[in-house]
Amino acid sequence: MKAKVHVMLKNGVLDPQGEAVKHALGSLGFEGVEGVRQGKVIELDLADGTSEETINEMCEKLLANTVIESYRVELV
Amino acid sequence: MKAKVHVMLKNGVLDPQGEAVKHALGSLGFEGVEGVRQGKVIELDLADGTSEETINEMCEKLLANTVIESYRVELV
Repeated sequence: MKAKVHVMLKNGVLDPQGEAVKHALGSLGFEGVEGVRQGKVIELDLADGTSEETINEMCEKLLANTVIESYRVELV
Repeated sequence: MKAKVHVMLKNGVLDPQGEAVKHALGSLGFEGVEGVRQGKVIELDLADGTSEETINEMCEKLLANTVIESYRVELV
């Protein structure tokens, strides 16, 4: 089975990578870019029958820093 | 309007970050992790009426390295 984990910085946490992308898009002449946030997607190829609970545990322990990041698990 | 751009390494391109995550999950005792690929999500907050063509252009010029990465644009 496959699962996708989306990890984003929580609202209010400064995102320098996103800011850099925003400025770079401006420099390239793209107008109207009001905000950019950058996050991660982690695609997991797991043994069949792995529970969503186990995947959440992976997120809590390793994939996301839950102090500043939120995550969402999507089973594919 | 909002758009999400998903950027992943193409198949066949070595993904050391994904490999590191895979090994780390194994070390933490998670079994059955057969593969991990890591990519990026970029959430764009754009002026209303920005065309999908413009977003594709942003991807080609800045957001993705199309030699080794593929991207997918999702309008939210």
